[in-house]
Amino acid sequence: MNIVRFNQGQWGILEGETIRETDSPGGNPTGATFDLGSVQLRPPATPSKIVCVGRNYLDHIREMGHDFGNDLPKEPGLFLKGLNTLADPANPSSPERTGEAVPYPSFTHLLHYEGELAVVIGRQMRQVAEAAALEYVLGYTCALDVTARDVQKTDLQWVRAKSSDKFCPLGPWLVTDLDPTQTTVRTYVNGELRQEAPTSLMIFSVPRVLSYISSFMTLEPGDVVLTGTPEGVGELKRGDRVIVAVEGVGDLHTRIEG
Amino acid sequence: MNIVRFNQGQWGILEGETIRETDSPGGNPTGATFDLGSVQLRPPATPSKIVCVGRNYLDHIREMGHDFGNDLPKEPGLFLKGLNTLADPANPSSPERTGEAVPYPSFTHLLHYEGELAVVIGRQMRQVAEAAALEYVLGYTCALDVTARDVQKTDLQWVRAKSSDKFCPLGPWLVTDLDPTQTTVRTYVNGELRQEAPTSLMIFSVPRVLSYISSFMTLEPGDVVLTGTPEGVGELKRGDRVIVAVEGVGDLHTRIEG
Repeated sequence: MNIVRFNQGQWGILEGETIRETDSPGGNPTGATFDLGSVQLRPPATPSKIVCVGRNYLDHIREMGHDFGNDLPKEPGLFLKGLNTLADPANPSSPERTGEAVPYPSFTHLLHYEGELAVVIGRQMRQVAEAAALEYVLGYTCALDVTARDVQKTDLQWVRAKSSDKFCPLGPWLVTDLDPTQTTVRTYVNGELRQEAPTSLMIFSVPRVLSYISSFMTLEPGDVVLTGTPEGVGELKRGDRVIVAVEGVGDLHTRIEG
Repeated sequence: MNIVRFNQGQWGILEGETIRETDSPGGNPTGATFDLGSVQLRPPATPSKIVCVGRNYLDHIREMGHDFGNDLPKEPGLFLKGLNTLADPANPSSPERTGEAVPYPSFTHLLHYEGELAVVIGRQMRQVAEAAALEYVLGYTCALDVTARDVQKTDLQWVRAKSSDKFCPLGPWLVTDLDPTQTTVRTYVNGELRQEAPTSLMIFSVPRVLSYISSFMTLEPGDVVLTGTPEGVGELKRGDRVIVAVEGVGDLHTRIEG
């Protein structure tokens, strides 16, 4: 099932090019239908928090200048993004003129893309074992974790670097039927492939990450977990067009303010 | 005016020992009244995010082993706390048996208290100048920024250290008429004074902090800003009773799980 959020924040189920409106995520039909091409898509989640894994693909850790050798991190490294970071995805049928642009703030001179698989929680999750973790997931989508790499290195914590307004385009919709350990994440900038990795290369699998977070931080329905970015991060320029594509989900189209 | 949030999350105005229920924070009376002693107080804010200043009193920076000498930080160092950290304050009239205890998680062996002045935002704040910043404030209250000091030093970012469940008792109510630059923050553990500092010692004043945050991160009504902790942080043991007292606001009573 593909779950969409659109227009004023109402929910729907996507069937082909038709949205059947529902009273909640994956809930009962209201009877109203909409053409996918005619709606404004919204981030397919209304989280109370966005929890992110900082280093989850070995090759990305190496490219950032860290070398753990055989001494891999023993626990997922986490950070938070504020809810002010959520940005509307473009409509895949008209990416040029829909969705919200990511601002290029004046404090940074080095904006980076980080394409990621995002998980949206379906029911309250507290101290859940790894084996049961996926039962708490509503669905999966694509996220662009926009990062101001220069101030990330100099600020006390990663707030300005990761949580400036609109630094987390999310979408285009949720897919409920996906094995998050057996898909592939790709990022394109202006049509050129920049990141590509199977999620099987994650150091900490999605069930492991969710179980770990829930061991000290209760996850609520709608909460979003970003699962880390693979090798190939790089610079964004004003006006760049970015696609984050998760196999089996679809394409998150977004753009950097011109 | 003293604004309280209580029971199922309804709002009220506190007059003496009487709560006059209102339809919103500082809003219109519903006609219902309650005795302060008979209600369960709740955190006096429903934020979309909790933004915190990490190093805002010079003496605290020094006690943490940093020495900036005359080279003070040029901008506030920020971090986020998740909404899962909010914990109900005790009722000052019966602190022994009300409010929510702060858990002592098994992953840490060094829990610290950090008493702070907290600011609650009244209306949306985006790129607001320092001179106008206080016009966007709904009120002021007390916060305990519970910190797992050991994992704060070893984890990638401060998520586990600062955002474990119930790591932010907040309350007991909001005071609207307070000069945040001319008050005093005190923390008591088991009745003993451990922290005491006038807010005039802040490196970045409350207006400066709010203006800075709003320059890249839109603050929404209800959002909470923790303004940093003074010198005197220290260890908490199971069963400890903590009071954070902001002059002109009142006392936040809380306790560590036994």
